Amino acid sequence: MKSFRIPEATITRLSFYSRFLVRLDRRGIVTVSSGEIAEGVGVSPAQVRKDLAYFGEFGTRGIGYNVKDLMHYTMKILNLNQSWPLALAGAGNLGTFLCTYRNFRDRGFIITGVFDNDLTKIGKKIEDLTVQPLEDMPGVIKQSGINVGLVAVPSRAAQEVVDLMIKSGIKAILNFASVAVSVPDGVKLRNVDMSVALEVLTFRLASRKAARGN
Amino acid sequence: MKSFRIPEATITRLSFYSRFLVRLDRRGIVTVSSGEIAEGVGVSPAQVRKDLAYFGEFGTRGIGYNVKDLMHYTMKILNLNQSWPLALAGAGNLGTFLCTYRNFRDRGFIITGVFDNDLTKIGKKIEDLTVQPLEDMPGVIKQSGINVGLVAVPSRAAQEVVDLMIKSGIKAILNFASVAVSVPDGVKLRNVDMSVALEVLTFRLASRKAARGN
Repeated sequence: MKSFRIPEATITRLSFYSRFLVRLDRRGIVTVSSGEIAEGVGVSPAQVRKDLAYFGEFGTRGIGYNVKDLMHYTMKILNLNQSWPLALAGAGNLGTFLCTYRNFRDRGFIITGVFDNDLTKIGKKIEDLTVQPLEDMPGVIKQSGINVGLVAVPSRAAQEVVDLMIKSGIKAILNFASVAVSVPDGVKLRNVDMSVALEVLTFRLASRKAARGN
Repeated sequence: MKSFRIPEATITRLSFYSRFLVRLDRRGIVTVSSGEIAEGVGVSPAQVRKDLAYFGEFGTRGIGYNVKDLMHYTMKILNLNQSWPLALAGAGNLGTFLCTYRNFRDRGFIITGVFDNDLTKIGKKIEDLTVQPLEDMPGVIKQSGINVGLVAVPSRAAQEVVDLMIKSGIKAILNFASVAVSVPDGVKLRNVDMSVALEVLTFRLASRKAARGN
């Protein structure tokens, strides 16, 4: 069942390379070196070359990469040459924020349905979406052929919502709840924990202080 | 100025190891092997050993690691053997969510002040915090000795808020706005882009389909 295994970190960096290439392309830049990509996203040039080598031969020695070609190619690898409809469970503060989140839309992720079981939230308009009852979620997921779900409900409700999504045909879940949820084999899961990013910062602050000797 | 450079991915994994160890410790488990840590967080045992080797010698061959010792040590490396007061700019949907975010509090990150310049938000209570005017932020940061800031304002206001935080003495910033901001040398910055996590999922979905040949 497992396909060839590209390291998670490589895919994450590919996502950053692709964003950087989009910005270069918008500015009309035609070619770029691995050194420039590396500097733009904060990794080493060798890392850029190694990451891209997973996916084939790119670039011309001494000239670099064609921005548009590499941009299209990275988007294709990430499967972003299409838009992705998303089902969102949870219309609280986080869910409402996600409905307006520009970074999703810029990359082709379109929240197509937002669901909650809180009667004070059902019927509420968020941008051009209307919050629907959670019990309508399976029907919408099936009808719209949605494969990806976002879980932005309170921790106590997370597993139940995940189970309902999977029963409805969801194949990949991004979980924002502060709790571990389980999914069966064949369903992809990622947990978003914003405190991880904070810990990288506090580590860096600590090593800075250590380097200064205070 | 630069201290010894541990790869970002290593620190991120260390943060996951440390969470896993906290869970083991709560369950009363005394020793753990690198294989068990690896399985718990989804990396290879060799990776666990390599990451921990950055920080010294741990564990006993054939016995494994003492959970409590390794937990305390990883927390110490991440500088989490203290709590961290945070200043939060932005009391919209995302800011309100962050004030209630359990993963922050569980790891010792305490939002100490929340600031906005929207008159309809100033004075509002979020949990036990009251939204304060943005102009009061510098005073609170200095008085409370806050080093870390969270930016959860609309994109157009992000750079201005970052500048104000830095002027007030903030040394590390976690930026949630969908826009690149710049900071001077010596200030640490991380941007949270939730679409990156989604792209890892869509990549995995795509390779799964490729492996099945449809």
